[in-house]
Amino acid sequence: MKTISSRHNALYKRMRDASREHAEEIVIEGPKAVADAKAAGWTPLLVVGEDVIFSDALFNDISDTKTSQGIVALFERPRATLDQLFARHDSVVIALDGVQDPGNVGTIVRLAAAFDAAGVALLPGSADPFSPKAIRASAGAILNVPCATASRDELLARGWPLFAADARGEATDPPARRAILAFGSEGGGVSEEIARAATLIAIPMSSRVESLNVAASAAILLSRSYALRCPANS
Amino acid sequence: MKTISSRHNALYKRMRDASREHAEEIVIEGPKAVADAKAAGWTPLLVVGEDVIFSDALFNDISDTKTSQGIVALFERPRATLDQLFARHDSVVIALDGVQDPGNVGTIVRLAAAFDAAGVALLPGSADPFSPKAIRASAGAILNVPCATASRDELLARGWPLFAADARGEATDPPARRAILAFGSEGGGVSEEIARAATLIAIPMSSRVESLNVAASAAILLSRSYALRCPANS
Repeated sequence: MKTISSRHNALYKRMRDASREHAEEIVIEGPKAVADAKAAGWTPLLVVGEDVIFSDALFNDISDTKTSQGIVALFERPRATLDQLFARHDSVVIALDGVQDPGNVGTIVRLAAAFDAAGVALLPGSADPFSPKAIRASAGAILNVPCATASRDELLARGWPLFAADARGEATDPPARRAILAFGSEGGGVSEEIARAATLIAIPMSSRVESLNVAASAAILLSRSYALRCPANS
Repeated sequence: MKTISSRHNALYKRMRDASREHAEEIVIEGPKAVADAKAAGWTPLLVVGEDVIFSDALFNDISDTKTSQGIVALFERPRATLDQLFARHDSVVIALDGVQDPGNVGTIVRLAAAFDAAGVALLPGSADPFSPKAIRASAGAILNVPCATASRDELLARGWPLFAADARGEATDPPARRAILAFGSEGGGVSEEIARAATLIAIPMSSRVESLNVAASAAILLSRSYALRCPANS
């Protein structure tokens, strides 16, 4: 197989654009994650390390070398709509309201799969779940969880009961189904527009810290929501 | 104030060694984290950005520039013993058994503070909680949580009830007090030595993922342990 070593090569440019811009195409790294994507029914457009070989310098441009283990695959970017998320009435829709860190977004996508959420609505100010860092943090779950961008107005227009993780709230159980569960930025929490419309849920904790990481808050509330929904398993 | 720009400067070398080796001295970055450390009773040995100024190149060597906001402080490394952790009978001791990622270790230290654990025992194969990456992930909690390294035998010799997060276990509540709660590596779980001695606790979840991130598992079980311990708050 020919090794591509020129940055003018069209395949290289396509992989590089997908890893940086993740607009219409995205990259998934590592043999395990790529195998999982195939098992989930996705067909790679191109697999670097199988269909084609890049020089080390070019490969480094498009991958996190530790995660990729020599394999980076190109996929069409999945597009989910709000309608798809709200088609399921037996679980909750997660809304991310200004979650800027791609690692946190990817971790929450993984939690959405683990606790069988209907999907993730990305409100303004949240990181792209299809960036390489978010995809890595999702541990392959990204192709398994519908993710749709939406404005706050579009989300609120659905008219579903809205709950938000917020330290100012009451320590009550999260919803089990047919509701939106929103998480905000690390420092500021959810936006005022969401907070005003939501029932605020606090997680009981000691006074030894000011706040929890947003992915930790999501783990706690989503696992509790799942246990309420599937009591036979808990 | 004089700007230090030589890599031969003794203060620079001391800061650099603390950031890389974190043996006897550690670095804490950012005005908020340094203020929190002072509020917790720790006195910095030196604050770069206040007591002394480093050139940009030298400052970049010792800091994550985004987090530090121009401030990196040197502190004596805290040393806790297993005896200190086991002196508290009103909470749980966390044991990390081969948790290699410093970000996960730091996140769990933050959770230990949030859910008022007695402290963290670091078994072989776990990352140093005093590395800059772990300290950043702890969001300042590191100086507030006793962390002690220990062998598995030393931990087991305490004779406390031992529980471990493990998908092979039963979906039962974690202990509330006077017990050890162990977490293992992302891929392999806790070591065989710990697994054999422990009651294994599984977190109920869907079959859409194979496993949870270790910090997510810790968030769920530690928050539940805290709620059982402090029912008035939950």
